[in-house]
Amino acid sequence: MQGNSMQPSSQATVMNFLNEVAGRFPTAISLAAGRPTERFFDRLQPSALLRALSRYEQYASGRGTKRDVMASLLQYGRTAGMIEELISAQLSRDEGVVATPDRLIVTAGCQEALALCLAALCPEPGDVALVCNPTYIGATGAADASGVAIVALPGNDDDLAASVAHTAGELRRQGRTARVLYVIPDFDNPTGRVIDEAQRVALLAVCAQQRIVVLEDNPYGMFRYDGQPVPPMAALDSAGSVIYLSTYSKTLCPALRVGSLTLPQTLFGDRTARMQLFEELTQRKSFLTVNTSQIAQAIVAGLLLEQDCSLRKWVQPAVDLYRDNRDTMLRQLDRVFAPLAGTIGWNRPDGGFFLSLDLPFRFDAEAVTACAVEHGVIVMPMAFFALDASQDRRIRLAFSSVDAAQIAAGVSALGAYIAQRIEQAEAAAGVAPALATAGAGSA
Amino acid sequence: MQGNSMQPSSQATVMNFLNEVAGRFPTAISLAAGRPTERFFDRLQPSALLRALSRYEQYASGRGTKRDVMASLLQYGRTAGMIEELISAQLSRDEGVVATPDRLIVTAGCQEALALCLAALCPEPGDVALVCNPTYIGATGAADASGVAIVALPGNDDDLAASVAHTAGELRRQGRTARVLYVIPDFDNPTGRVIDEAQRVALLAVCAQQRIVVLEDNPYGMFRYDGQPVPPMAALDSAGSVIYLSTYSKTLCPALRVGSLTLPQTLFGDRTARMQLFEELTQRKSFLTVNTSQIAQAIVAGLLLEQDCSLRKWVQPAVDLYRDNRDTMLRQLDRVFAPLAGTIGWNRPDGGFFLSLDLPFRFDAEAVTACAVEHGVIVMPMAFFALDASQDRRIRLAFSSVDAAQIAAGVSALGAYIAQRIEQAEAAAGVAPALATAGAGSA
Repeated sequence: MQGNSMQPSSQATVMNFLNEVAGRFPTAISLAAGRPTERFFDRLQPSALLRALSRYEQYASGRGTKRDVMASLLQYGRTAGMIEELISAQLSRDEGVVATPDRLIVTAGCQEALALCLAALCPEPGDVALVCNPTYIGATGAADASGVAIVALPGNDDDLAASVAHTAGELRRQGRTARVLYVIPDFDNPTGRVIDEAQRVALLAVCAQQRIVVLEDNPYGMFRYDGQPVPPMAALDSAGSVIYLSTYSKTLCPALRVGSLTLPQTLFGDRTARMQLFEELTQRKSFLTVNTSQIAQAIVAGLLLEQDCSLRKWVQPAVDLYRDNRDTMLRQLDRVFAPLAGTIGWNRPDGGFFLSLDLPFRFDAEAVTACAVEHGVIVMPMAFFALDASQDRRIRLAFSSVDAAQIAAGVSALGAYIAQRIEQAEAAAGVAPALATAGAGSA
Repeated sequence: MQGNSMQPSSQATVMNFLNEVAGRFPTAISLAAGRPTERFFDRLQPSALLRALSRYEQYASGRGTKRDVMASLLQYGRTAGMIEELISAQLSRDEGVVATPDRLIVTAGCQEALALCLAALCPEPGDVALVCNPTYIGATGAADASGVAIVALPGNDDDLAASVAHTAGELRRQGRTARVLYVIPDFDNPTGRVIDEAQRVALLAVCAQQRIVVLEDNPYGMFRYDGQPVPPMAALDSAGSVIYLSTYSKTLCPALRVGSLTLPQTLFGDRTARMQLFEELTQRKSFLTVNTSQIAQAIVAGLLLEQDCSLRKWVQPAVDLYRDNRDTMLRQLDRVFAPLAGTIGWNRPDGGFFLSLDLPFRFDAEAVTACAVEHGVIVMPMAFFALDASQDRRIRLAFSSVDAAQIAAGVSALGAYIAQRIEQAEAAAGVAPALATAGAGSA
């Protein structure tokens, strides 16, 4: 993540920075944290975790004695996992991804899956991982930590396929090779955008042709509030280009640290190459975390069994809450920034946890602090997710872990800060502050 | 792990190989698996895990509302961990390591700690991790996966300090730098040897002088069956050279995947450098596993609270079992190999899970299969842990996850195989097979 001095070098640094700000201003409303709501955590009380464990034990008892089952739960486990069948079933049922247990590795959260794939697919110094710009910090951070070079796709997301083809060609001329494209097609973190089906198909064609593996990260796909779902790239992939990354952090809870990666049936048509990649990923995992905690796996398994291998019903209350939160945020943005129409813009995501706001000025770490100190609201500069200066005038707003009142007050407070910044800029430029009361007026 | 074509390239490969052998000969006795006994797993029934979780909840309830506690158990957590205080207390009480929470990172098993430290401490191409030869596959594998060069210390373990000084000097002349020494001072895996206190002090002096960080891995320190404990290197370290790696895999159970690393108070006298290293390790962890499952952490915490932050009493039944197993193995080795005294040798470890056996012939993967097929016993070639051919005539015997009858039968069967091999060699050389009935006679 070179080339942008403003960007904190990692998720940990960003989180430290935000935690520090939050710690200094404990009453500030955070629209920065992209966490799942805690509203429904009472479904995961210790007694519910025990029930899930017992449910899994009962399921597993068909395969061995009670002693065998206890050993499988407590001893060292198989590196690739213990519950691939159930995860495969859930991915097939809920996300339309035809996963099979022999192609699936259970990981210590999706982050481990990402780290494993980047390191395994980009072993040579000239190998490059392509990312959108801005993109999830965990992807660029994992690449950095493994010494994998990252190149941002130029332009915005209008024609990703052309952008990939162009960038891969440029790299080739430099003697480098684009090996991987990391992408969150559904309700991107940080932008909230969805890649439409035509674009997915075009992207797949380019990636297959260039032999670029798509790392499709889909933490938010289950959280659609409007419109028709777009098939995952893994479901549209006929060439063997897509590794599908999944997590239970948003659907169940983050603390389980259970995610998965699913390889395609063949790697660009080569079944043996896929099997070799599976072996390599498994081997790498054995040197990072040995195996994913079977206790955590068994809890996930028990919950999946209780839900008949579909989490659709389980997530429905959260989906409803997030939809309401998004609507509240959009309504409040409309109200607060009506006087600034044309100056401030934002997207209207059909799902996920985030939207992005375009500003007429630079929003940096200092702005975060000023906004928190003077207006009591914490937001996330988009620059934290960027590989260049192109995102300096944007922020990310998260609506997943706040309530309606916090959203209303937070957006109003942000409006006041933004109005003040515009006023200052206009005063400095000698322009009458015609629009500058917007934020204050709506508070 | 270049340079030895016989050595499987990883723990996963070794485990795959051994699992395959075990799968093909399911009735064979395995003296290969270095796993903890499952005999006491009934103390970790789901109901006991729930009790531990509840015990931790009660402890944590002093620090926030029930909702806060639930959130800390289920939401994204602090990267460095949630239960450092309790782990520090246990390390201080049980292992004599003065750990403090601000220097401790809770990891997804000790393997993650090892991977983080190797990558963070050896960032440059010329940086080298020193290891004993043979050594734990997880160390060399983690180094390999991170692209960290490994150099084996020459000679056997008689004068490790001189060996480190010599090797570091050699490397310097090549323009390379020894950054790390990985070592298991107590009951080494695979050899079972203990580094005595004088040697530890000498090693620390050399490492401090050369600014080599000691990664002291201590999974077996709690399993001493005879003699006086030797202080951990971390407890003898006054220069700030030692990172102490610990795990609950052997004391509680592997499936929790909870370990820790503890940094020294200063890094070679520099407190700021230690704090920077802490930050870097935390950052790297955030890109591998985000944070260690708080559910697993809470179970560990609850068990530690129930045991008053000492696991001495908890492990006592296992210590007694392992001592008996070791004694059974030593007695049976004495019996079976009495006729071969001088030809076959082995050590008599005061603790741990392993001993090593010296043979008069090469013991390779083919030998593993032959031994399993013809004699029904599976053992581990020491070559699997080696960086050169020096270990080709040794095997590792594990006595931790078998019972007395299996040990007796397994060692007898091994004796028969060894006798047969010696007989064949002598027949081929035209020597009378005087000693060759040893194994068969004792079966």
